[in-house]
Amino acid sequence: MSGHGASGPIGRPRGEIIAVGTELLTGQTLNTNAAWLSRRLAEAGVDVLFHTAVGDNLERLQATFSLAAGRSDVVVVTGGLGPTEDDVTREALALFAGRPLVKDRAALENVRRFFARTGRPLLPINVRQAEVLLESRVLPNDVGLAAGFAFDVGGTHFIVLPGPPREMQVMFERYARSELLAWLAGRGWTIQPLFHRFLHFAGIGESAVADRLADLIRHQTDPTIAVYAEPGHVLVRLSTRRPDERQAAEALEPLMDAIVARLKGHYFGEGEALTLAEAVIGRLKGQGLTLAVAESCTGGRILDALIAVPGASAVVRLGVLPYQTPMKAAVLGLDADGLAEHGAVSAWAAEAMARAVRRLSAAEVGLATTCVAGPEPQEGRPVGEGYIGLAVADRVWSLAVRADGDRNLIRQRIADQALFALFRAVAPSSEPDGENSDRKGEERE
Amino acid sequence: MSGHGASGPIGRPRGEIIAVGTELLTGQTLNTNAAWLSRRLAEAGVDVLFHTAVGDNLERLQATFSLAAGRSDVVVVTGGLGPTEDDVTREALALFAGRPLVKDRAALENVRRFFARTGRPLLPINVRQAEVLLESRVLPNDVGLAAGFAFDVGGTHFIVLPGPPREMQVMFERYARSELLAWLAGRGWTIQPLFHRFLHFAGIGESAVADRLADLIRHQTDPTIAVYAEPGHVLVRLSTRRPDERQAAEALEPLMDAIVARLKGHYFGEGEALTLAEAVIGRLKGQGLTLAVAESCTGGRILDALIAVPGASAVVRLGVLPYQTPMKAAVLGLDADGLAEHGAVSAWAAEAMARAVRRLSAAEVGLATTCVAGPEPQEGRPVGEGYIGLAVADRVWSLAVRADGDRNLIRQRIADQALFALFRAVAPSSEPDGENSDRKGEERE
Repeated sequence: MSGHGASGPIGRPRGEIIAVGTELLTGQTLNTNAAWLSRRLAEAGVDVLFHTAVGDNLERLQATFSLAAGRSDVVVVTGGLGPTEDDVTREALALFAGRPLVKDRAALENVRRFFARTGRPLLPINVRQAEVLLESRVLPNDVGLAAGFAFDVGGTHFIVLPGPPREMQVMFERYARSELLAWLAGRGWTIQPLFHRFLHFAGIGESAVADRLADLIRHQTDPTIAVYAEPGHVLVRLSTRRPDERQAAEALEPLMDAIVARLKGHYFGEGEALTLAEAVIGRLKGQGLTLAVAESCTGGRILDALIAVPGASAVVRLGVLPYQTPMKAAVLGLDADGLAEHGAVSAWAAEAMARAVRRLSAAEVGLATTCVAGPEPQEGRPVGEGYIGLAVADRVWSLAVRADGDRNLIRQRIADQALFALFRAVAPSSEPDGENSDRKGEERE
Repeated sequence: MSGHGASGPIGRPRGEIIAVGTELLTGQTLNTNAAWLSRRLAEAGVDVLFHTAVGDNLERLQATFSLAAGRSDVVVVTGGLGPTEDDVTREALALFAGRPLVKDRAALENVRRFFARTGRPLLPINVRQAEVLLESRVLPNDVGLAAGFAFDVGGTHFIVLPGPPREMQVMFERYARSELLAWLAGRGWTIQPLFHRFLHFAGIGESAVADRLADLIRHQTDPTIAVYAEPGHVLVRLSTRRPDERQAAEALEPLMDAIVARLKGHYFGEGEALTLAEAVIGRLKGQGLTLAVAESCTGGRILDALIAVPGASAVVRLGVLPYQTPMKAAVLGLDADGLAEHGAVSAWAAEAMARAVRRLSAAEVGLATTCVAGPEPQEGRPVGEGYIGLAVADRVWSLAVRADGDRNLIRQRIADQALFALFRAVAPSSEPDGENSDRKGEERE
């Protein structure tokens, strides 16, 4: 089996993405569409060789389309299909292709329905959004007004999509992808589908992960391994082109097992968009455990991440943010003398907070943070120093932690460490956590 | 005075940005450098007309440089200056310009110092990072290894910068900007500096703001007005090119006053990166008021935003997230019969929570949210419905709110509405809030 997964007229098809909009060139808007479309084209077996951003200008648009037609097999154009005079992508395509624009009946009906639904009058400028190139294949817009379309010029396939990311993405997923795959197949490019696995690791940096997998990464052809830094954790993506899911699983699963074994104690789950908070909620819910959290310096970071997970309400009972020190005594009932003796940023306080919030809520698990987020040191402790407290049934302990960065990076990093400590603390007994024992030195029981 | 602020050989200089790196074309990395550089070039008076992203490929890089030289006055190239064989930007520039690469003595010294400091051996591949084009002006890298440089080819000015955003930004700010301005001045483009004001508005959408300012925006030359949707609020940026700050203030301040007057009741402050949470903390601190917050569905969104503001600890006393309904009685002391009668998502509950969290903390101000974030309806109420409770001294009231979107958009939007309601509720008496009275119909006292 070929490691490239594509065979066609001349190797793999070459592609490029043209994003239209003056707001990109002023730096007002980030060109996220180019990155998103690049991943989708790669999945379809197209090598993306250029991204271009160009303004809403007839002459420069035509020049950009001509250049692209001369060097690419597939060109995806996105943006400039709005209703106003500024939006001239359609007109530029018509001039470039030498074909007129025509109103598409179904697209016009879509525009009419939209205005009927909202009770607003249909304006002549909106009718433009139902225009497509003569003899193009129309791509319906299920979540907006502007129709997309696809056509060929001299052997190059153009796919034209709206600029708002949601409209662009829905149109691509529902209509443009299959249109593209059919075109590629018709040209003799039979592309095997791309299959992925996404593995997530915490408590370790991106470069340390890459280093531990260096020999696997070095000579990869298929499957490929890519390491990404996600907010708060590291994502490893494995990819293979195979005829079907069964063969993909045969190629990917032994590699997954090898990678997880090498990074034992850092793995927290699988799935494209998995977050540490989701993994925590999933693990607690799986064991029927409820949680209460007391956050001091992280101030809402942990609870916000947990409550963002749909279904969190079955797990998270209570959050308390005793942000000013006297509140730790008044609301959580911490001993004022103990607080004065040990300080609000101490292992003692972290443990007392975890114990107290668990008791107050009658949850099975209590988690607490206390740290110096800055900008100023506190109680003689430097910025970035802190403690994580855990209370699981009758066992209460804490971990000393440190984080670098500005105030909000410190808050985020200590929140991430707390979530991962919690994830490890509630490992099911059937799944002993290989590295827990390494941490004993930091724990106080 | 010219409305364009630039005068030179032929109008304003044309610019483009070329970002080099295969990771951009695979969609792994967002091209944030292009957006950042576009803003800096605009400030220098350069019209950016194209962004291109191209991979680490000698042939395609040369073609891209030739195209750019043929159509632009200023070309900024970023990326591909790393130490490995993949990084060929320098070699492609040498081939394109027909000039050899030479080692720069100061850049080499910078590389040597870096390796001496870290105690690692200097490898031959790192010496490449001290190479620049013969007879170019070297741009030092104070925070990394790769030197940048600037040179001319046939009337076009090329500025070459490293790809890592921090290195690129520091090099631009410290060396490339002045180098560019000197080049522009030498060519007869005398650019007046650009001055901005940033005004922030909440409780109103981007298009409504644009609509109310439509006549001001339509015929603008200088100052210019731009409307941006920021997370949770709307930003209006005013810009002018003037010789100095005093003349800029004369041009901008009457316009600011006019805009704030038109959007009365929505304005919450000035400054490039101001957030609603900062404005709230600033207003409370200015009046010596402290705050306690009880969040239900927004679950940490409000507290996280507030505590992200440096100095929040002088204002925020306590947060309570009684996420499961029984916690509202157990921790905040809400009346269980009242809860059963009115429901956890009710004006009654929002007011009782605000009152209770204020009392529990002895803060001057209490804020509370309760809503249905979804995915499921709750107590027969639809997703997106909710209430904001406010307790300021002895006055307690609530607002009914609604938000669209998925779970986390709803949480975010209700958090934003709550922060803005709080901002208005604590307006200093010297600054009567013109629209507060409009809202009376929604309030229950």
